[in-house]
Amino acid sequence: MTTHHFNPTRYYTAIGSWEPVLRLVDGDTVITTTVDAWGYDSRGQQVTRGGNPMTGPFYIEGAEPGDTLVFQIDSITPNRPFGWTNHVFATNVVEPDFVLELPQIDGIAEWRIDVEAGTVTLVKPETKLGQFSLPLAPMIGCFGVAPAGDQAIWTATSAEHGGNMDYRGFAAGVTVYLPVFVPGALLHLGDVHAIQGHGEIVGTGVEVSADVQFTVRVVKGKHIGLPRGDDGAYIFTAGNARPLDQALQHATTEMARWLVQDYGLDVLSASLLMGQAVEYEVGNVFDPAYTMICKLPKRLLEPYWKG
Amino acid sequence: MTTHHFNPTRYYTAIGSWEPVLRLVDGDTVITTTVDAWGYDSRGQQVTRGGNPMTGPFYIEGAEPGDTLVFQIDSITPNRPFGWTNHVFATNVVEPDFVLELPQIDGIAEWRIDVEAGTVTLVKPETKLGQFSLPLAPMIGCFGVAPAGDQAIWTATSAEHGGNMDYRGFAAGVTVYLPVFVPGALLHLGDVHAIQGHGEIVGTGVEVSADVQFTVRVVKGKHIGLPRGDDGAYIFTAGNARPLDQALQHATTEMARWLVQDYGLDVLSASLLMGQAVEYEVGNVFDPAYTMICKLPKRLLEPYWKG
Amino acid sequence: MTTHHFNPTRYYTAIGSWEPVLRLVDGDTVITTTVDAWGYDSRGQQVTRGGNPMTGPFYIEGAEPGDTLVFQIDSITPNRPFGWTNHVFATNVVEPDFVLELPQIDGIAEWRIDVEAGTVTLVKPETKLGQFSLPLAPMIGCFGVAPAGDQAIWTATSAEHGGNMDYRGFAAGVTVYLPVFVPGALLHLGDVHAIQGHGEIVGTGVEVSADVQFTVRVVKGKHIGLPRGDDGAYIFTAGNARPLDQALQHATTEMARWLVQDYGLDVLSASLLMGQAVEYEVGNVFDPAYTMICKLPKRLLEPYWKG
Amino acid sequence: MTTHHFNPTRYYTAIGSWEPVLRLVDGDTVITTTVDAWGYDSRGQQVTRGGNPMTGPFYIEGAEPGDTLVFQIDSITPNRPFGWTNHVFATNVVEPDFVLELPQIDGIAEWRIDVEAGTVTLVKPETKLGQFSLPLAPMIGCFGVAPAGDQAIWTATSAEHGGNMDYRGFAAGVTVYLPVFVPGALLHLGDVHAIQGHGEIVGTGVEVSADVQFTVRVVKGKHIGLPRGDDGAYIFTAGNARPLDQALQHATTEMARWLVQDYGLDVLSASLLMGQAVEYEVGNVFDPAYTMICKLPKRLLEPYWKG
Repeated sequence: MTTHHFNPTRYYTAIGSWEPVLRLVDGDTVITTTVDAWGYDSRGQQVTRGGNPMTGPFYIEGAEPGDTLVFQIDSITPNRPFGWTNHVFATNVVEPDFVLELPQIDGIAEWRIDVEAGTVTLVKPETKLGQFSLPLAPMIGCFGVAPAGDQAIWTATSAEHGGNMDYRGFAAGVTVYLPVFVPGALLHLGDVHAIQGHGEIVGTGVEVSADVQFTVRVVKGKHIGLPRGDDGAYIFTAGNARPLDQALQHATTEMARWLVQDYGLDVLSASLLMGQAVEYEVGNVFDPAYTMICKLPKRLLEPYWKG
Repeated sequence: MTTHHFNPTRYYTAIGSWEPVLRLVDGDTVITTTVDAWGYDSRGQQVTRGGNPMTGPFYIEGAEPGDTLVFQIDSITPNRPFGWTNHVFATNVVEPDFVLELPQIDGIAEWRIDVEAGTVTLVKPETKLGQFSLPLAPMIGCFGVAPAGDQAIWTATSAEHGGNMDYRGFAAGVTVYLPVFVPGALLHLGDVHAIQGHGEIVGTGVEVSADVQFTVRVVKGKHIGLPRGDDGAYIFTAGNARPLDQALQHATTEMARWLVQDYGLDVLSASLLMGQAVEYEVGNVFDPAYTMICKLPKRLLEPYWKG
Repeated sequence: MTTHHFNPTRYYTAIGSWEPVLRLVDGDTVITTTVDAWGYDSRGQQVTRGGNPMTGPFYIEGAEPGDTLVFQIDSITPNRPFGWTNHVFATNVVEPDFVLELPQIDGIAEWRIDVEAGTVTLVKPETKLGQFSLPLAPMIGCFGVAPAGDQAIWTATSAEHGGNMDYRGFAAGVTVYLPVFVPGALLHLGDVHAIQGHGEIVGTGVEVSADVQFTVRVVKGKHIGLPRGDDGAYIFTAGNARPLDQALQHATTEMARWLVQDYGLDVLSASLLMGQAVEYEVGNVFDPAYTMICKLPKRLLEPYWKG
Repeated sequence: MTTHHFNPTRYYTAIGSWEPVLRLVDGDTVITTTVDAWGYDSRGQQVTRGGNPMTGPFYIEGAEPGDTLVFQIDSITPNRPFGWTNHVFATNVVEPDFVLELPQIDGIAEWRIDVEAGTVTLVKPETKLGQFSLPLAPMIGCFGVAPAGDQAIWTATSAEHGGNMDYRGFAAGVTVYLPVFVPGALLHLGDVHAIQGHGEIVGTGVEVSADVQFTVRVVKGKHIGLPRGDDGAYIFTAGNARPLDQALQHATTEMARWLVQDYGLDVLSASLLMGQAVEYEVGNVFDPAYTMICKLPKRLLEPYWKG
């Protein structure tokens, strides 16, 4: 269990079976950096072309197709004092007629990020909001493992392998589970947001470069269908598709399968439990594939855990 | 400001311009009862045909098209010790292929409702859940005002007038705002659930008859587009449509309009605020129209309130 | 088998269980008129408020819930020389970003309708199209039977009962089948278009008042789930829902059921036949419920007909 | 203008920037073969893994990002006497409840393909259809150019680059236009169907290996957004997305842009023309991205052509 310090020099805008940048073993920790969605680093310099450039891929020894990769997010720290967002709602998240009422404004909105104070503050443009501050809540917008076959999936979108899920719950302290499709899993990550609302409805979070620390493990022979997570209070699954209805179908089905796989339930008992206790959270409704999160409180599941 | 005790004898399964059962004035409170989704009352007797039978309609003096009706939910108390749910996931909330794995079980699942203890407990069938209890959390599944024109809208579905939104946030202590389409508004309510998960993914909450107390007010000359609510901590809007994407578009747009209407913001500032702070909650993904809730924390909005 | 001449004086903008205007028996023919979508008649005078006002309802003796009403469209003839359309694409049929490129133009576009010549010609505004003429192809935009229960369904939308399907295949010579939900079926019709493209993508056809002749029959004890039709060359089913995917699911399923019900097939053989031979046509993608048509050529089905 | 005979030995199941198998110049013709969706060739031998393996990619000299590749389908001839389909409807094309009525049958259905007679005949299983024959109508299910950036897109799905559109209109005699994203365009093709219904609702056409002849040209400096086609009678555009509504939005918008680009119209006149004359055809509603075709008759456009 080594801790690696890795400085990326090459970034990818698709998640695929690229030459690994580092080989890790079960239990290893990596401390690295990510650039922002447009390829700007901690100094505010563009070091690669935009479109959610990924740090990685990291090869995890022993990970084989059919296994599960455990991706534990240890810490996410914005490493520069400014971030940016779009100005107005994405055209696809409002009523079609309301699109005509959206102001057309060039450029980006700027936000000051104060890691010490734990705040994110709108700096520009001047608006009717006046001084507007929100608590810092860093998350990883895009991460995933190489997909099967010859595919390399654009970092704008998401699927079974993870990808650009833009869910604000992928924060420090969360353990993520990813299905492995290729030898070594080939983990990629990037596109950190200092904060983001549900749905990413302006098409961005507060986009920023960051220092990220994570730890990997491999669960041999455990097959899962979609990204899963555990934030201490909840377990959750991520469905990625359009429309949101289909993303919800994926997330719901994966949660039912998880209850059968690890909690000793059958589909009937999973239905009865989820029917009255399930929660959903919207990851994003902006990217080509939307992300819907299906959640269950862990305290409710404790009696059933067979893990 | 009178308190009325009203015992319903006639129920409707569509929300429309029926003969009012009671005339109320601004500030009046009503204490009444609702039957369950299949028309069974507190004694467990079927008193009307099923399909979310409505108590009402109540005529509110002075409410005219273009006004807003304030519907304050004072209390919701199940008035019998048993409720029921469906057994398994609705076929439309899981992956299409997973439908083949759903067990086909006749009849309904039974739940014991203990108002004193504040619990809802699965009684039948016996499952791998064993003893399974959840906290009582009563909500009104279906309520609304008469729609415009000649319409009478089925209580299975929802629209601008409210209807079968099946959102668990319509609970005691919540103030709901409804657009008025016809003179007197004509408020209907029914279909109480002792508890319900997000999404109503088995197609029911714990269905029960109930004692309900509510208070009405009229805001003259205030036009809103969709149901809105305030639960003390959050303000929220309800979008009703399929797919869920469209429900989300409606809810998001109504929230933006609310911020412009009552909080002195413009579309740009509403976008910047909502983009990083908005939350969504899934009402239901079972009914003909799905319901998506768009929420904002009230503490964030305090500086802007112009009411 | 009587031929009735009926002059409407009262119109409804919801399809419901209104007092019938005329009682018909099996085989009767009706010659009547319809006003245009905004309530304007053959003289160009507004005789009722807009929103697809319906002529009817017609009570058909002997039609009971569970039967099928046969609605044979004998003729549709625009009865004035002008019609109108919207100017530009509905905002929901183009990419959300493209909405910003739609010109905002007040008023309506005017078209000259020449029944003798069989043409529909754009008159105003002047555009880059210059002289632009299309062949006259009249259709009934909205028709249906009273829905079940207490409902009265807005004539803007459609469902199992028919309604505002805006499918250009509902033309003279077509036999339509409708499920009966209430005694007498209560047939409504209106909203004739002189021509309309697939999808009704500007939100209107060429809207016009018309003389309509139709004949009714009742098929006792025959249950169907959705509107069905026969245009001589094809049989077809109409699915009404959003998104279009769901409308397609309804239409496809109803066609499979029809093949089982009347053609002696089972689901396997219906699948094999439809899989390689089915056709779809888009009714509308503008109304609250979209309409998708599922079609099969009759020559292919002849060997199987058991009717 | 050379005619190349190319025998593929390597196939890809993602469309990407692979090493080209052949370099072509503007006007060149290629005669080649494709294997079926599961990698079986003309002898019925599996020569590569399944999942719509592609022949190619072909590098076209002079094609640069921002140009348009012209892909003219000269001929498609099944090169073996048997094809196969799935047995029953895909679970996503029928009502969710109807999924429970789908028979579960192992294996595939077999069809005899008689190129001389021009027929496709169901051989197995025996069904209530008895002898069931359809006219041979070969089409290319999947073809496209390498997408931008680092992407390699799975041949199960489709996007701006083309891909698995499964539209039966991609037949011999059709000229297809594709946007170029990478130098050389890198054209792939495969997945021929001997016939297919609209929508590919059993999840397959009659899958077969084939001899294919095509000719390529490059239109320098002409930018298009999506695949376009011309079948002699119609011009058409292909929108690829889910839900079908979004695919329709893409196809409609691309057609409007085409009318502006090549026919001297503006958005107003394009709206007026398309509103009353547009046609849609469903490509597929099975693949991860659905395909909707937007069509206009060429005779209607002749007065406006500015090419």
